[in-house]
Amino acid sequence: MLQIGIYGYGNLGQAAARAVQAQPDMTPAAVFTRRPPSQVSSPFPVFAARELPAWAGRLDVVLLCVGSVTDAPRLAPEIAGRFHLVDAYDVHSGMRAHFARVNAAARAGNRTALICAGWDPGLFSLFRLLGRAFLPRGGECTFWGPGVSQGHSQAVRQLPGVLDARVYTLPDPEALAQARRGEAYPLSPEKAHRRLCFVLAKPDAPRETIARTIAGMEGYFAGTPTQVRFLSPEAFAAHREKLHHGGSVLRSQAGQRMELKLTLSSNPAFTGAVLAACARAAAAAARRGQFGALSLLDVPPRDLLPPDTDVFPFL
Amino acid sequence: MLQIGIYGYGNLGQAAARAVQAQPDMTPAAVFTRRPPSQVSSPFPVFAARELPAWAGRLDVVLLCVGSVTDAPRLAPEIAGRFHLVDAYDVHSGMRAHFARVNAAARAGNRTALICAGWDPGLFSLFRLLGRAFLPRGGECTFWGPGVSQGHSQAVRQLPGVLDARVYTLPDPEALAQARRGEAYPLSPEKAHRRLCFVLAKPDAPRETIARTIAGMEGYFAGTPTQVRFLSPEAFAAHREKLHHGGSVLRSQAGQRMELKLTLSSNPAFTGAVLAACARAAAAAARRGQFGALSLLDVPPRDLLPPDTDVFPFL
Repeated sequence: MLQIGIYGYGNLGQAAARAVQAQPDMTPAAVFTRRPPSQVSSPFPVFAARELPAWAGRLDVVLLCVGSVTDAPRLAPEIAGRFHLVDAYDVHSGMRAHFARVNAAARAGNRTALICAGWDPGLFSLFRLLGRAFLPRGGECTFWGPGVSQGHSQAVRQLPGVLDARVYTLPDPEALAQARRGEAYPLSPEKAHRRLCFVLAKPDAPRETIARTIAGMEGYFAGTPTQVRFLSPEAFAAHREKLHHGGSVLRSQAGQRMELKLTLSSNPAFTGAVLAACARAAAAAARRGQFGALSLLDVPPRDLLPPDTDVFPFL
Repeated sequence: MLQIGIYGYGNLGQAAARAVQAQPDMTPAAVFTRRPPSQVSSPFPVFAARELPAWAGRLDVVLLCVGSVTDAPRLAPEIAGRFHLVDAYDVHSGMRAHFARVNAAARAGNRTALICAGWDPGLFSLFRLLGRAFLPRGGECTFWGPGVSQGHSQAVRQLPGVLDARVYTLPDPEALAQARRGEAYPLSPEKAHRRLCFVLAKPDAPRETIARTIAGMEGYFAGTPTQVRFLSPEAFAAHREKLHHGGSVLRSQAGQRMELKLTLSSNPAFTGAVLAACARAAAAAARRGQFGALSLLDVPPRDLLPPDTDVFPFL
């Protein structure tokens, strides 16, 4: 049994712990929270985040379940120097820098870090690669939503004056229909979507400043039509439970079309399941001595399944 | 530049040669045909199939582009003992036996064989594996068509008394709609499709025997509603040029749904492109000393692209 540590215990961390528990060959050995452990209710053993270093040698893989804007860039390299790691870092514009930082730390510590593992980046990245391999002269397009973007919500939540936030991403229906017909992709991804941002602000927060800051956030909202609405606590409550998401990757070349479509009732549940499967692949790469930062593009797909899985039924 | 040999020069072999030529890092060095080479028109150098052994040491990978019923089971192990090989063997019920035979030959000769590489098996196999990894308790369904099944057409073409054949595979629209809604999959794959088989027979051929033989072919038609129609040469001509195909793999678990959808104007063009990309992965595995039979489930996806490809844009 792989002993899995889960660092961060919000929506994603809780989902990851459940996903680990649902697998036959791994167990959620310890949850590490940055809140006081006594205030965290969990069916799994809960510890303070600062205790993680003391677990060296007792965890096979740590799943990092924290926000990508400020937390993952700092924590992933720190943890990857001592533990095999999986993260779901999701800022597309920050990939190279994140890889470089985590790679340096993991190599220095002879550790394996399988990073950017979710559905996008992650499953969608893999599909974009396959599209390029099999339709090398094709055009490609990714649509996200309709759904709640956790990464974007988390990014807004960290702004001064913001108590909570929910960001909905909506694809342009006409652009999506065009792409499905294999027609030209006239719009950049930024222009083929819009974002609807519901904010619960502190009573005295400067709303105009917050709205302007959101619209200008590089790698998140800049370049995409973004609408910000400030809600009362009562109105916001209706949005808090919404966790659905999804999207499509389309690739097309001379009448040949590939589409991957994902419809998720719970975004964190799916991302957590990807993290759990990737824990196996990270452990397998570590056993081979493949240290440093990897992504789903680098690992043999069968390493995502329990080692004794008969893969002939997939063929 | 990878020097690629193409063995078999029907629809698939021709498409594979064009796909190899379209890639920046490989070249169709030699085409091997079982017809008299002087009768084969090709922009690439054409040789008799029996000359292949003399090319040992001059080809990086051989793409085997022959039928799966009788030719590939015999030729793949024979060639895999001397060359790194990619094939598109596609009889789902024969996978284990084919793997065992090719694996033994390739290991004995220190060669790498990446087999069953097409869209199904191949791309669809990979997606089924990912579905199992990320939605481990889900239900799964594969639909093929509407389209022309090359493997089935080839299988029928080899029957005594048959001059040519085209087999159309059609999914049950209601079963497909149910699967897309994430409902239970009430039908086995065999029952969720029907096959329409157009045959051009020799004038004196025993039509009833042929029809009965087709309907009973294990791994191809047995268990699936199959209609066989004998056409005149004039009527058959309209079907001969049709090469479209496609299908969907769906996986669903508690409101989480994944779908891979493929719509192909030319089945051999796509399969040929998969073979070409897999030549790279086979060559990369061979460089690592990874000998024996592999499938797309075993290779790091980035090996499908030219080695100098920047993969960050996929993330």
